[in-house]
Amino acid sequence: MSEALGIALIGCGTVGGGVARLLQEQGERLAIRAGRPLLLRRVVVRDPAKPRPVELPRDMVTTDLQSVLGDPNIRIGVELVGGVDWAKQAVLALLAAGKDVVTANKALLAQHGAEVFDAARKYGRTVAFEASVAGGVPIIAALAQCLAANQIQSLQGILNGTCNFILTRMTENGQSYADALAEAQRFGYAEADPTLDVNGTDAAHKLAILVQIAFGLSVPVENIDRRGIADIDSLDIRFARELGYTIKLLAETWLSGAKLALHVSPVLLRQLAPLAMIRGAYNAIHVVGDAVGDVLFAGQGAGQMPTASAVVADLIDLAVGRAQRTFATLKLWSGRCNGIQLQPSSTVRSRFYLRLFVEDRPGVLADVSRVLAQHQISIASVIQHEAPENHEGGRVPLVIMTHTALTGDFRAAVAELDHLSCVAPPSVYYPVAD
Amino acid sequence: MSEALGIALIGCGTVGGGVARLLQEQGERLAIRAGRPLLLRRVVVRDPAKPRPVELPRDMVTTDLQSVLGDPNIRIGVELVGGVDWAKQAVLALLAAGKDVVTANKALLAQHGAEVFDAARKYGRTVAFEASVAGGVPIIAALAQCLAANQIQSLQGILNGTCNFILTRMTENGQSYADALAEAQRFGYAEADPTLDVNGTDAAHKLAILVQIAFGLSVPVENIDRRGIADIDSLDIRFARELGYTIKLLAETWLSGAKLALHVSPVLLRQLAPLAMIRGAYNAIHVVGDAVGDVLFAGQGAGQMPTASAVVADLIDLAVGRAQRTFATLKLWSGRCNGIQLQPSSTVRSRFYLRLFVEDRPGVLADVSRVLAQHQISIASVIQHEAPENHEGGRVPLVIMTHTALTGDFRAAVAELDHLSCVAPPSVYYPVAD
Repeated sequence: MSEALGIALIGCGTVGGGVARLLQEQGERLAIRAGRPLLLRRVVVRDPAKPRPVELPRDMVTTDLQSVLGDPNIRIGVELVGGVDWAKQAVLALLAAGKDVVTANKALLAQHGAEVFDAARKYGRTVAFEASVAGGVPIIAALAQCLAANQIQSLQGILNGTCNFILTRMTENGQSYADALAEAQRFGYAEADPTLDVNGTDAAHKLAILVQIAFGLSVPVENIDRRGIADIDSLDIRFARELGYTIKLLAETWLSGAKLALHVSPVLLRQLAPLAMIRGAYNAIHVVGDAVGDVLFAGQGAGQMPTASAVVADLIDLAVGRAQRTFATLKLWSGRCNGIQLQPSSTVRSRFYLRLFVEDRPGVLADVSRVLAQHQISIASVIQHEAPENHEGGRVPLVIMTHTALTGDFRAAVAELDHLSCVAPPSVYYPVAD
Repeated sequence: MSEALGIALIGCGTVGGGVARLLQEQGERLAIRAGRPLLLRRVVVRDPAKPRPVELPRDMVTTDLQSVLGDPNIRIGVELVGGVDWAKQAVLALLAAGKDVVTANKALLAQHGAEVFDAARKYGRTVAFEASVAGGVPIIAALAQCLAANQIQSLQGILNGTCNFILTRMTENGQSYADALAEAQRFGYAEADPTLDVNGTDAAHKLAILVQIAFGLSVPVENIDRRGIADIDSLDIRFARELGYTIKLLAETWLSGAKLALHVSPVLLRQLAPLAMIRGAYNAIHVVGDAVGDVLFAGQGAGQMPTASAVVADLIDLAVGRAQRTFATLKLWSGRCNGIQLQPSSTVRSRFYLRLFVEDRPGVLADVSRVLAQHQISIASVIQHEAPENHEGGRVPLVIMTHTALTGDFRAAVAELDHLSCVAPPSVYYPVAD
């Protein structure tokens, strides 16, 4: 067997603890699969006194990144600190020092992928990042390797387990958003400050990485239309269900000719659609390729050991020599983009779910349908339930499912509807998947 | 870009035609991903006059395998002839001639994997076989590479699309087995002679390959307990549904300590279980690993282009140099088995669905439950519907769900039940997934 491969962890929180555990406890198994021992030599942390999820020999832990950079026996740095600024500094320093890098940091790659990958190429090193999207689900390898014969046509992903957990609770238990979020926090599925999860930013980071691999296109995260789940009302989940749909937060991208549409948004999915059945804190990605047809990948998208499983798979790939070859052929964030261009969201065609609160009086439906018709939006179905008896003069929900329309037209129509005297703004709308 | 990689197809039926189409029509795309052109140089067929699903230059087609073996410009032979005897001869000849081999032939690998892989190692060549299990679903790469940090705990697969199509029709449309099979044949999902599909042999071949990768264990296909779907009665599908279950043909294997259980069998799955939701001709595999937890892979398990997608992914992996490294580390069919042993099926513990036809008279349930109790089998629930009015003295179905029992005990109990005078044999039983 070849000599041991020296590894340093940069950061040792939840995921780092899981990686350290696998390396320490499963050394024999991993050595067989990697063709050589994977040897954890050093763990760089900010505060050595902080309790860790794993026991580490005292002299392995340090606050000094230099002790990794200067150690020729360390060949791979595993960046698991999170955040962007210090992580970027560390990754660039590791590459400059001749180390390969494994990272689970989606924000870093989505925001500074070009700089990181350029540096890797400059120093002849490899960056592996399976754990950056969907945790234990091997979607990076699937796109970079297993589906390489295909032109990917579309990707639809449930990429944020926190949001999917919350929406599942709202759908199945009728909980409010606030109650479901509190429960997610109790279970450890949501951070104390869940903003980046629930506003769609985390899913947008992951979508940017998938788009880069599948389409060779660099999309600045701020150019990804994104809506989160914090505004979703139980009312709309109930109406969607009545219509045969489930609401999921999806990161979606699809190719039409040479134009690529993408967004992060709550979307109505038919209840029998594969992604509609992904419950709880799971992640899933539905990929369509021109040869393979549709493929579904699902599993735990976060958590200590699922994410560690992906990190250690990257370590094995580096030890075996596969990751280097994948990285060399991928040419990610290299400006290569196959002539594919971003499609402005206003020109994307979609069906829509629209829910308004309207006055319960004659002529309202006529007013609403006139505005929609003026914007070339055709109505597929309508739900308006009879108002409760003691509800005179109150407002009632009016739900409209449209046929396919231009997003720009539809948004303009909603803006106009929200100015009608019979409508209580803001009206709520979500795209509907075909 | 490096020089072109010369490829020969051995066999050009449905899948071969798809591979030829991808190589001919997507040359530019594949060259970028493979780092070099993938050049189809020769197609070996038995009958050159037979119509092909793809147009090939006349001088590319030959009946002479020697013209491939002797051509130093051909580096990879893609075996897609199917069957075992001639395919094995061709594969061994290709390896001996210094060619790497890509194959989709599950029967060949399941029955002669050791011989094929030994030959590859002897000649320093690589065998890649992603297309042999689950068509376009990258389950081989997932097990060999992406989940390599894990000890796999269990695999449950819907590995035969024909069977899943038939069972879906029986479940959703109430069709009989014969009608659903006829429909599968009309749609091209079933062969004119569907025996190897519907009797579980095809799924058993695929299970043997997955077990080899996941557990390093060589299981002769004839040692895999297997039951097919040809005897499944609509009646049992309806009772299963009434109990909240769906019947699927599963290839399953799971580890208990150092013992590995495996079988191919119709199994009752809870209706919300991920595999219960896989409909029609799709394949799916549910994998549990000790780090990653559970992961689901689903997609088209057969058909021209999905299978060609997997074959071409292997060609790219060979061109890039990844497949060689995977093959070298896998040590498949090499006698290495990690001390894992097969568990005799009689010692496997499971819950069971049991359906008997019994006489509609007092004391029958007492007789049946006494026999079960004598074999240490505890009843979880019972369904016996009131007989139709004009049904005096007739036989009625009695459905029993058991608690967990030893398969050997359970089978002995069923054999004894089938000798009771009040029971009309043969009684029907299926395992129930937890």
